[in-house]
Amino acid sequence: MKILTLNCGSSSLKFDVIHTTIEKMQRNEDSSLVRGIIEKIGSNEAIVRFKTHHGHDSKVKMPVNDHKEALKKIIEILTGDNPKILSSLEEIAGVGHRVVHGGETFTKSVVIDSAVKEEIVACSDFAPLHNPQNLIGIQVASEFFPHIPHVAVFDTGFHHTMPNYSYIYPLPYNIYQKHRIRRYGFHGSSHRFVSKQAAELLGIPSEKSKLITAHLGNGCSITAIRGGRSVDTSMGHTPLEGLMMGTRCGDIDPALILHIMNKEGLSIAEADAMMNKKSGLLGISQLSNDLREIEDARDKGHEMATLALDIFCYRLKKYISSYMGVLGGADALVFTGGIGENSCIVRELATKDLDFMGIKIDQSKNTMNNGVLGKYERPTDISASDAKVKTLVVPTNEELVIARDTVLCIEKLL
Amino acid sequence: MKILTLNCGSSSLKFDVIHTTIEKMQRNEDSSLVRGIIEKIGSNEAIVRFKTHHGHDSKVKMPVNDHKEALKKIIEILTGDNPKILSSLEEIAGVGHRVVHGGETFTKSVVIDSAVKEEIVACSDFAPLHNPQNLIGIQVASEFFPHIPHVAVFDTGFHHTMPNYSYIYPLPYNIYQKHRIRRYGFHGSSHRFVSKQAAELLGIPSEKSKLITAHLGNGCSITAIRGGRSVDTSMGHTPLEGLMMGTRCGDIDPALILHIMNKEGLSIAEADAMMNKKSGLLGISQLSNDLREIEDARDKGHEMATLALDIFCYRLKKYISSYMGVLGGADALVFTGGIGENSCIVRELATKDLDFMGIKIDQSKNTMNNGVLGKYERPTDISASDAKVKTLVVPTNEELVIARDTVLCIEKLL
Repeated sequence: MKILTLNCGSSSLKFDVIHTTIEKMQRNEDSSLVRGIIEKIGSNEAIVRFKTHHGHDSKVKMPVNDHKEALKKIIEILTGDNPKILSSLEEIAGVGHRVVHGGETFTKSVVIDSAVKEEIVACSDFAPLHNPQNLIGIQVASEFFPHIPHVAVFDTGFHHTMPNYSYIYPLPYNIYQKHRIRRYGFHGSSHRFVSKQAAELLGIPSEKSKLITAHLGNGCSITAIRGGRSVDTSMGHTPLEGLMMGTRCGDIDPALILHIMNKEGLSIAEADAMMNKKSGLLGISQLSNDLREIEDARDKGHEMATLALDIFCYRLKKYISSYMGVLGGADALVFTGGIGENSCIVRELATKDLDFMGIKIDQSKNTMNNGVLGKYERPTDISASDAKVKTLVVPTNEELVIARDTVLCIEKLL
Repeated sequence: MKILTLNCGSSSLKFDVIHTTIEKMQRNEDSSLVRGIIEKIGSNEAIVRFKTHHGHDSKVKMPVNDHKEALKKIIEILTGDNPKILSSLEEIAGVGHRVVHGGETFTKSVVIDSAVKEEIVACSDFAPLHNPQNLIGIQVASEFFPHIPHVAVFDTGFHHTMPNYSYIYPLPYNIYQKHRIRRYGFHGSSHRFVSKQAAELLGIPSEKSKLITAHLGNGCSITAIRGGRSVDTSMGHTPLEGLMMGTRCGDIDPALILHIMNKEGLSIAEADAMMNKKSGLLGISQLSNDLREIEDARDKGHEMATLALDIFCYRLKKYISSYMGVLGGADALVFTGGIGENSCIVRELATKDLDFMGIKIDQSKNTMNNGVLGKYERPTDISASDAKVKTLVVPTNEELVIARDTVLCIEKLL
C-alpha cells in the first residue's frame, strides 16, 4: 500500500509517501517514495521542497495562498512526470495525519470519522496552536481524497500507559477532575519508533526491555519505557515542560512566571510567548535557537553560547539520571531527533560521569558522524565495550509510524 | 557563649538559647538550654510553648498582640525562676536571626548593621512573605538587646556555590540580568548542617565527600553537595520549585498556571495561593498536609492518600536519581527534617529499586524508629551492609547552625 502522510502546521505542510504493508513493516522493508515540505504558506514566496528515493531534489519558491493550494501542489508533485512518482493518485490507499493532542480520549491511532473529528476539536483546548491546524490538514485532504480512509496518529497516544503517579500533578485534584489537566507527553510516535528499533538492535524482546529515549530536535523530550510502554515523559500538559529546547524554557520554578508577569507587566499571552518562543538556547545565547550555530559559536569562545550548551546538556543529564531511577536501571539510552542524531557534543556532555550507573560512551564511535562516514543512517551502538547500559543513536522516522499505523487501522489490526 | 536564636514568621516567633563556643562546636558539645515557639501572635489565644534541656515542658495560651510582646514573653521565660534558665539577660552574648532570602548579596552570615538591614529590605522582593517578617524580628530584638551583636543567617547562603549552569534558568538572559531571577535555593542551614554531620559519621573529609541531602519537612528540598559545597538544589527562585510538599506543588509544567488562570478566572495572587497553599499532599489527598495523617489514611486504604504518598515518593526518587547523576555517584544519601527523620515509608519508597546505582537500605534499620527504640536522636546509618552509597538519617538542627554562625561572626572567623 502507498500511504500519504501529512503533518499540517500553521504555515507549513509536511508530506511523505510511504510504501508499506504488514509484511514490509515486519521486515523493516517499507520505504519512502518521496518526502517534502511546503513552508511559508500564505505568502508569495512559499518554499516548496521535496526529495525522491531516486535522489531527485527540488526547491522552488512560488505563491501558495493556503493549505488547500499547498495540498494541490503536493498532488501535482506526486502525479507529475518529472520525476515520476505515482502512475495515478488512485495508488494512494490511505492518508495518515499527525495530530498533536489526543487528550485522554485517544490512546491509539484511529480512522477519522465525524465523531473523531469532533473529539479532536474538543482536544484543541489542550493544544490551541496545533490541533486546529491538524484539523485543517484533515479537512483539506478529505476534499482531495474523499474515498479512502484517513487516519489520525496522535503525538500523545504512546504515553497513555503512564501510571497515575507519573501523570497527576500535585495540584488540587479537582483541577484534574474538572479540566483533565495532567501530564500527556508528546513526540509519542518518535519515542515509540526508536524504542522498537533499539530493542531490535539489542536483540531484547520489547516487552522485556527497559529503555530511555531522548528525542532532541526543535522540541525536546525524554521518555522512560518499560516493556515497550511509556511510564514517564518529560513534556507535560503542554510541550513546554521538561528539557530545555531551542526556544522553550522547559522546567522552571512555577512561581516564576507570575513574578515575571508582575515585574515586566506581561499579559498571559506575552508570558506564554516568552517561555515558548524567546527562551531555551535562543534565550540564553541571545544568538540562535539552532544548536549547530550554538556549537560553532562555542567553538569560537562565545561565552553565552557555551552557557546555553552547558545548561542544555546538564538538564538533559539530570533527566537521564532521573529516568534511570524510574526504571531501576536500563538496557539502553537512545538518542534521536536532529540534535540527538547529530550532536556528538550533546551526547558526550549529557552522559559524562554516568558510568557509575552503567552509561559510558566510546568517544571514537560517538564522534564518527562528524567525520567522513557521514550521519548515522541506521541504529548504531556508540557505547564503550564495557558499558552495562548501551548508548544508541537511532534515526527517528515519525512519518513511517504514521504510515504503518494507517495501514494497521485500515486492516483493522490496531 | 550563650546565643539567642530567633526565627520570626508572620504570626510566630521561634527561639532557642544555645550554649556554644569555638571549642564546643568543634567537639559537637554545644547544647540547647531552652527552645520554644510562640504561635498565633496577634490573637487572644496565642500559644506559648517551650522545653528546657532539663525536661521542663510548658504550653500555655495567652493574648500576645505582636512580635514585641512575644519577645518580651520569651525574655520573661529566659529570666524567670521556674524553670531557672539564665542568671541574667546579660549572659546572652549575641542574637542569631534566621533570614530567608539573601539574594546574590549575602553568601555567608553577617553581623547586622544598617547597611545589612537595607540589603535585607532590598531582598524582600524575592521573598515578600518572609524577609519583612525576619526584619520585624531583627527590629524588635535590637530594641531589647541593643548592646550585643545581631547576626543574620541566610537560608540561601549555603547555595551560593552553585555553578551558573545550575542556577540560571533557560529564560531570556536579560530576565536574570535585570531582575536577578535565578535559582537561589533554601533550607541552606539544614543542608549544610546535616552534610557536615554525615561526612563526620562516614569519616570522610568534607572537602572530599559527595552527598545528597533531602530535607523533608513542611517544605521539602534536596541538595547535591560536592566537597562540602552546594552544587544544585531543588528549590529555586522561590521555595515553590522542586519536590512535592505539604501544601506546595513543586515542579509542574510552567505553562499550566497560565492555563489554569484562564480556565478558573484566577488572579496572579490566587494562582500563587493555589500552588503554595492548596496543592501538594493536601491538594491530592483532599485530607491533610500532614504526612502522618496521610500515612494513617493510606494504611486504612484511603485511595487519594495513597496516590498523594505515591506521587510524593516517586518525585523524590526522581530527584535523588537526578542528583546521583549530577555528582557522578555519591558517598551517601541523607534524610532529614520531620518527614525525612520519621517516615520509614517515605525512605523506603524513595529508594526502591535504586540498588543498581548503589543505594540500598536495610529495612530493619529503616523501620527501627517506628518501634520501641524511638526516634533517631543521632546520625544513623540505615544502609544495607553491601550498599555502595550509604543511606543516613541525620536529625537537623538549624538553630545550632544559626548559633554557631553567630559565634563565628562575633569572633570574626567567618
